Amino acid sequence: MPNKGIYLDNAATTYIDPQVVKAMEPYLNDKFGNPSTIYKIGREVRAAIDDARHTVASFIGADDAEIVFTSCGTESNNLALIGAAYANEAKGNHIITLPIEHHSVIEPLKFLAKRGFDVTYVPVDKNGLVDPEEIKKAITDKTIIISVMHANNEIGTIEPVNEIGKITKEKGIIFLTDAVQTISAVPVNVDEIGCDLLSISAHKFYGPKGVGALYIRKGTRLVSHLYGGEQERRRRAGTENVAGIIGIAKAIEIASKRMKEDSVRISGLRDKLID
Amino acid sequence: MPNKGIYLDNAATTYIDPQVVKAMEPYLNDKFGNPSTIYKIGREVRAAIDDARHTVASFIGADDAEIVFTSCGTESNNLALIGAAYANEAKGNHIITLPIEHHSVIEPLKFLAKRGFDVTYVPVDKNGLVDPEEIKKAITDKTIIISVMHANNEIGTIEPVNEIGKITKEKGIIFLTDAVQTISAVPVNVDEIGCDLLSISAHKFYGPKGVGALYIRKGTRLVSHLYGGEQERRRRAGTENVAGIIGIAKAIEIASKRMKEDSVRISGLRDKLID
Repeated sequence: MPNKGIYLDNAATTYIDPQVVKAMEPYLNDKFGNPSTIYKIGREVRAAIDDARHTVASFIGADDAEIVFTSCGTESNNLALIGAAYANEAKGNHIITLPIEHHSVIEPLKFLAKRGFDVTYVPVDKNGLVDPEEIKKAITDKTIIISVMHANNEIGTIEPVNEIGKITKEKGIIFLTDAVQTISAVPVNVDEIGCDLLSISAHKFYGPKGVGALYIRKGTRLVSHLYGGEQERRRRAGTENVAGIIGIAKAIEIASKRMKEDSVRISGLRDKLID
Repeated sequence: MPNKGIYLDNAATTYIDPQVVKAMEPYLNDKFGNPSTIYKIGREVRAAIDDARHTVASFIGADDAEIVFTSCGTESNNLALIGAAYANEAKGNHIITLPIEHHSVIEPLKFLAKRGFDVTYVPVDKNGLVDPEEIKKAITDKTIIISVMHANNEIGTIEPVNEIGKITKEKGIIFLTDAVQTISAVPVNVDEIGCDLLSISAHKFYGPKGVGALYIRKGTRLVSHLYGGEQERRRRAGTENVAGIIGIAKAIEIASKRMKEDSVRISGLRDKLID
């Protein structure tokens, strides 16, 4: 940490890893091309974004084409909820979530509630944990989306997302999990969870502010939330925050390495203890 | 320009001015606080954002509270159009624009057209110029927004925005002008134009990609487009792209200085010629 003093609010935002800043710098200097242009300087930047997308996708067990870069976790959750609600409204208008979700889930749902959608808030126990059976009971034939966070940002409780993923898969309901607080802290694999949408944000794990990503499982119906050019396979218009995208990928690369080392170290300690 | 070769597509994106990168760097390193937090490191970042907001506001003749930072020009236009349409739908559902507007205006309008809004495209002449009288004729008692770009991004024609501003003011219609291509190239003053909303993007004038701003005239009814936390006076949720915001302000500071110098230089040449 490059700052004096002791900083104790890594859940609000982390400092940026110096290796992340170093990886971003060329894209603030020489490598300034617009990735949508077809000449060399633009193509080089396009290739770097493709590599970044691969790094993010691999980390959560996704395909590259399933990752959309956004400007923050809030935008990821807005795109996920509003984009999936509008794309699936012919099928139904019911959405299920928890009352303890982050603002960036609750507020888009309040917006949707004003525009003809019904939202059910399934209560949690005193530890913030939801019972998957309660989720199951809340499902109607109009339910199109279930949004349950991977872990709560204030309590830290990890929700039973894998069980919920099994339910949504069986019922053909879109499952969003907000992993902004957990990504890089615990292993996250989209197929193990069985989610269709998963939100992340760079500034919670030593990446820069102003960049996030949304995982969108192949086949998930979703419209854009920012309309304009054809960037991000028409799922997110707007010239890419190139340096930010390079930064989130580098932060993930570092987190991935650290998690592997931690895992080896902890296994070693466990083996020693058994011996 | 820090790159080899000659770059001829500044209308697609510019390189980032080294002074801009230098101004951003502390916010990628030591000054990493979350501006929404109340302790020192967050408050310092909040103060820097306030200064940046003042720089942007002053440059276009606006008050600080009238500037909302976004992730790009596309987001500015989406927020302006969708935010103003939803906030004013009780009053009417009609929007007027030009067929030559940027994708980031045309596509949100196509989205709104699917959701109950009527859009009229007023034709332009062979130079891309609209006749303000034609705009006037297109107005109905349901018209809530008129969106006319400041200048076209391909032809370069400057539209008669000041005349259109007089019409919209008289009729009480919200006037958006997309100034992404003109800001820093020609003087832009929101009161001279008489616009209620004005979009800008940093990467068109030697600022970083991934940051833009929207001017929202005091009293203009507009709902958010990204729902979540209370950032940007509840008009744009999401943790701020701090380094990007510092970067757009520095780019504007440099543009402002350059425009003043150009003006003095051109006046001098004119005086010499007259002598």
